[in-house]
Amino acid sequence: MAASEFEIIRRFFTPPGPGRNDVLAGVGDDAALLAVPPDSELVVCMDTLVAGVHFPKETAPAAIGYKALAVNLSDLAAMGAEPAWTTLSVTLPDNDMDWLEQFSRGFFGLASRYNVQLVGGDITRGPLNITVQAHGFVPAGQALYRQGARPGDLVCVTGSLGDAGLALHLGLTGEAPLRKRLDYPQPRIEAGIALRQYASAMIDISDGLLADLDHLLEADGLGALLRVDELPRSADFLSALDAAGPGCESLARDLTLSAGDDYELCFCIPELQRVAMEETLASIPCAVTAVGVIEEEPGIRCYRKDGSTYTPSTTGYQHFNRTD
Amino acid sequence: MAASEFEIIRRFFTPPGPGRNDVLAGVGDDAALLAVPPDSELVVCMDTLVAGVHFPKETAPAAIGYKALAVNLSDLAAMGAEPAWTTLSVTLPDNDMDWLEQFSRGFFGLASRYNVQLVGGDITRGPLNITVQAHGFVPAGQALYRQGARPGDLVCVTGSLGDAGLALHLGLTGEAPLRKRLDYPQPRIEAGIALRQYASAMIDISDGLLADLDHLLEADGLGALLRVDELPRSADFLSALDAAGPGCESLARDLTLSAGDDYELCFCIPELQRVAMEETLASIPCAVTAVGVIEEEPGIRCYRKDGSTYTPSTTGYQHFNRTD
Repeated sequence: MAASEFEIIRRFFTPPGPGRNDVLAGVGDDAALLAVPPDSELVVCMDTLVAGVHFPKETAPAAIGYKALAVNLSDLAAMGAEPAWTTLSVTLPDNDMDWLEQFSRGFFGLASRYNVQLVGGDITRGPLNITVQAHGFVPAGQALYRQGARPGDLVCVTGSLGDAGLALHLGLTGEAPLRKRLDYPQPRIEAGIALRQYASAMIDISDGLLADLDHLLEADGLGALLRVDELPRSADFLSALDAAGPGCESLARDLTLSAGDDYELCFCIPELQRVAMEETLASIPCAVTAVGVIEEEPGIRCYRKDGSTYTPSTTGYQHFNRTD
Repeated sequence: MAASEFEIIRRFFTPPGPGRNDVLAGVGDDAALLAVPPDSELVVCMDTLVAGVHFPKETAPAAIGYKALAVNLSDLAAMGAEPAWTTLSVTLPDNDMDWLEQFSRGFFGLASRYNVQLVGGDITRGPLNITVQAHGFVPAGQALYRQGARPGDLVCVTGSLGDAGLALHLGLTGEAPLRKRLDYPQPRIEAGIALRQYASAMIDISDGLLADLDHLLEADGLGALLRVDELPRSADFLSALDAAGPGCESLARDLTLSAGDDYELCFCIPELQRVAMEETLASIPCAVTAVGVIEEEPGIRCYRKDGSTYTPSTTGYQHFNRTD
């Protein structure tokens, strides 16, 4: 059964429930009308997912809907923001009701978990393309930036690294736990908010630790020492690696260093804040691991636990590779 | 010459000039950080343009860049909002430097005219797809909605109707004045702001007058009488019609009633406000024409100047046509 644009919006993109008090007008007018709380600043980000580029073509529609929002919430988390509103543009080849129903379920499933309200967007016909914009708030003056790290600060990461990359590398599908890390990344909203009072700088890891840490360092012209054997690996990562047989240690190191799509946070804190930060983060189900130290000298220097230097084979994902 | 995503952002999407004071962090972090003025509400809209759907495939890149922003500014205008910030997602098949340079020129040309700052976005590889989100402000409580018309209110439109539709119909290209109306629509920002104090309801005409007026009427369960011979036509429209020879009157009527892409405003005002509104609007280079009256009975009834009823051949554009 086919349906018009308006029927699609009514059936699949009308937010469930009563809605947030700060949405004065949502879906259904020329634009949404929104009230930012007093003494708060507005945090805004936008990310696009393209089939075959940002997710494998066979990805379940619910995972696409979930992930399109999750990657944006991860950007809000990296600023220490509390999410509030989202807009969504879906370009799709035909008005496939099953696809839309599943996509919508994935999208709203995550949105409702964080009390995020869909307030507008667009539905158009064309090659599959999903663009989401997310809006959040931070108390005035408390946002975290890529800039702000100081020499001597610890470099920390949340959760574990390389899971999504290993799922892609092994070609895992469906219900495999690592594949779920790829399809349903967990935006670190609670950790981002808690870190406002401790972190000196923060970024989310979408293109791989080395690439994203490099962005953070570039913002201040600094460098870092990184202990590659201390990069956190999940139990699923370790058992998949075991199953793949011996000789995968180098692959594992490079995945934790360079694979994208984990959507963990990478942040810096003064050493003196470490204990207080760990106590605060203990109430959040999200591990934090110190993996390096900020240094004056630009560049990232990787070390093994025996003190030898390590040279990664790749540095990270770029959408347009340099060919000149 | 090819370039990385970051080089593209630096070369083509770094806003020129010092930037707005209310942008605390713009392009270059995980998200933008923005300050909404006190006593203002935030107005947010998002529109996507797909090649071959929203613009002819041979459209100049500068026109695509201009129009992607213009259609969003038109939505802000329809709320009575003053534009402030924008985000932009560009998906394109390859990193064509000439294309990007021209696109960027069109986009920023319009942005600078309205002091709109680009604060974030995304560049991805894939089939051409442009999504823009625009943000603006209205003083608290002064936004205009589709809802709010009353029986007896005049139905008015800004500018002229059917120009873009006639350009498409005639297959006009390049520098033809009507083609310029299609490629470079003028968002009615100044009129939208001035109409805050007079209009009871407002919408922008993107899908054709009948379709968009119908949305406005549906919001209150009302109807309208429309005088089809009084729909405003531009001098370019009339001369192109003359050149096309006799027998085009019915086509002309249907284009002014149903063709999309004009991005004029359709609004309602109480008859008593008409003189004051016309005096205020006189200082803005944008004509306003009263073309009908709001009625209790749902539906739109079209009349010719001789008093006979008129039945349009089409009602408006839908992205997904009803096939069931």
